[in-house]
Amino acid sequence: MTAAPASFADIVQRLSAAPVPNVETLAAAEARNANLTKPAGALGRLEEIAIWFAGWRGAPQRDGASAQALVFAGNHGVAARGVSAFPSDVTAQMVANFKAGGAAINQLCRQHDIPLAVTPIRLEEPTADFTEAPALDEAGFFEALALGWESVDPAADILILGEMGIGNTTAAAAIAAALFGGDLAQWVGRGAGLDDVGLARKSEVISGGLALHLPAIEASSAETRGLQAAQRLGGRELAAILGAALRARLQRQIVLLDGVIATAAIAPLHFCAEGALAHCLAAHRSVEPAHGAMLSALGLSPLLDLGLRLGEGSGAALALGVVQSALRLHAGMATFEEAAVSGPGA
Amino acid sequence: MTAAPASFADIVQRLSAAPVPNVETLAAAEARNANLTKPAGALGRLEEIAIWFAGWRGAPQRDGASAQALVFAGNHGVAARGVSAFPSDVTAQMVANFKAGGAAINQLCRQHDIPLAVTPIRLEEPTADFTEAPALDEAGFFEALALGWESVDPAADILILGEMGIGNTTAAAAIAAALFGGDLAQWVGRGAGLDDVGLARKSEVISGGLALHLPAIEASSAETRGLQAAQRLGGRELAAILGAALRARLQRQIVLLDGVIATAAIAPLHFCAEGALAHCLAAHRSVEPAHGAMLSALGLSPLLDLGLRLGEGSGAALALGVVQSALRLHAGMATFEEAAVSGPGA
Repeated sequence: MTAAPASFADIVQRLSAAPVPNVETLAAAEARNANLTKPAGALGRLEEIAIWFAGWRGAPQRDGASAQALVFAGNHGVAARGVSAFPSDVTAQMVANFKAGGAAINQLCRQHDIPLAVTPIRLEEPTADFTEAPALDEAGFFEALALGWESVDPAADILILGEMGIGNTTAAAAIAAALFGGDLAQWVGRGAGLDDVGLARKSEVISGGLALHLPAIEASSAETRGLQAAQRLGGRELAAILGAALRARLQRQIVLLDGVIATAAIAPLHFCAEGALAHCLAAHRSVEPAHGAMLSALGLSPLLDLGLRLGEGSGAALALGVVQSALRLHAGMATFEEAAVSGPGA
Repeated sequence: MTAAPASFADIVQRLSAAPVPNVETLAAAEARNANLTKPAGALGRLEEIAIWFAGWRGAPQRDGASAQALVFAGNHGVAARGVSAFPSDVTAQMVANFKAGGAAINQLCRQHDIPLAVTPIRLEEPTADFTEAPALDEAGFFEALALGWESVDPAADILILGEMGIGNTTAAAAIAAALFGGDLAQWVGRGAGLDDVGLARKSEVISGGLALHLPAIEASSAETRGLQAAQRLGGRELAAILGAALRARLQRQIVLLDGVIATAAIAPLHFCAEGALAHCLAAHRSVEPAHGAMLSALGLSPLLDLGLRLGEGSGAALALGVVQSALRLHAGMATFEEAAVSGPGA
């Protein structure tokens, strides 16, 4: 295994040299799609997904994809400021729930036959409160990034990257605001269930963090400012997701992108090089307001819109069935010739 | 088996006495949902589906639903007027494709392990051209309705009702226009791929059909005018879908509703009695413009919006995985007590 990168410059350099989709398998999939027994375009987004998958995976017809689910957990110093409806103990309690098989992600992984690995990262050592200091120092950021990198199964076609961390919608909102700017209110939501007072407090806390860290973020190069924001405002589970998504990109594996936190976690890569997130498929749009806005900013269009806001990778695991459908339709349907069905106007 | 109804009055009478959801299992599912290890409401629409299912099926926790897919095929006299991009022979050719396992619905039924039954109905005898006469006479309408009724497996939790019939988006648009009124253009789409000239011809043909049949439809009682429209403007595969959906309603089985034709097929029941379609879950929104408008008029909100416009029950079979996810999450997740996870503010 290639070692995980250990500097921002290393990440930028590797992404700048990242491989592109296979043009031959892409063209073969387009040609096959045009001959399947259905009116042209009648399977809508499913056709696009099958063709796109064929390019990334270098395979024209696959009767289903292999997938791996990775859930990372971290604790956040900023949670002590009352930005979540739940206490920080819940992070470890939910990790135990994942390991016992009782959480939402467990049911969805069972349904879709996806292996699930859960990695708590130094839960007993929360990140620093970002209103006072960078959430992580450089060593802490790259340690968590490497954990994500090393967790990836290179044989998996699709990665589902999930997270658990009380306070992490605050980290996600801060990263989104730092990277995409505009009115802060558009990035701040109720997370796991804040009331109006809590929501106002959360906005104040994020404002404080931005005041402290934006100067250093804006002083960084265009390529590394996202990574600066991730280190200063993010968390260990977000850095691990970034590391896994980065490795996936370099190996032409697909990331089925979950909700607002997973999206904030990978958004910094968008600034490193063109096409850094071209391997990502947005599984759904969360009701957390920052999510839709971030997806738009990243040029990603969500597959599902079902009012989810759970995290854990749950939206991505839910959407996997739709991706599998796209692949099975593409691989399994007969062509007009095979089925002796007349084409249009015949 | 109770015999299929044989008159409009009989349909109205049975729907007026149709059973309602089980209030005890509904309440039990609501109570369980409130205790599962997730923030309240974080699974959005999936929570609503699991609770709704529990009421209709009289079962508080089910680790998945049984489903049955029924595809009916018919030919349409109006197709001779050039309202489809494909020739009428394609109906029988696609039935052969279904039976050989090469169509889209076959792949989706395999993926979700759904038994599929395909029923061509008198393909060699198209309905009458509705610009000249009622598409079906009363005997023909009730014969097809009974075929649908008799095809239902009373043990299935969920019915997926699909269709194939060159020309049947014309029938669907005519029914929608007759029942919901307004500007004709909103109901008429390109079907399997009409060009602009074909689209204009299709609108003219539908206008002709409406001019001939609206007087009789509007002279019918409020309860039976939908059924009048189905007989005069519809087709055999639409009548079969109506019969299957009617029986499902009386047996508290769920219909996972496919696209514009399946929706036009069952819409007439909406006028027969309050709650006649309360057992229907809209699987997706087709790009065919009439579909979204009809779903709104029927008070149904689609689960998926992926640009599909194929029919065959394909959108419903695709959405089945999401419904299964909802049930598995509800049945399989641990409660806060079971997992020793703290609740909000604890």
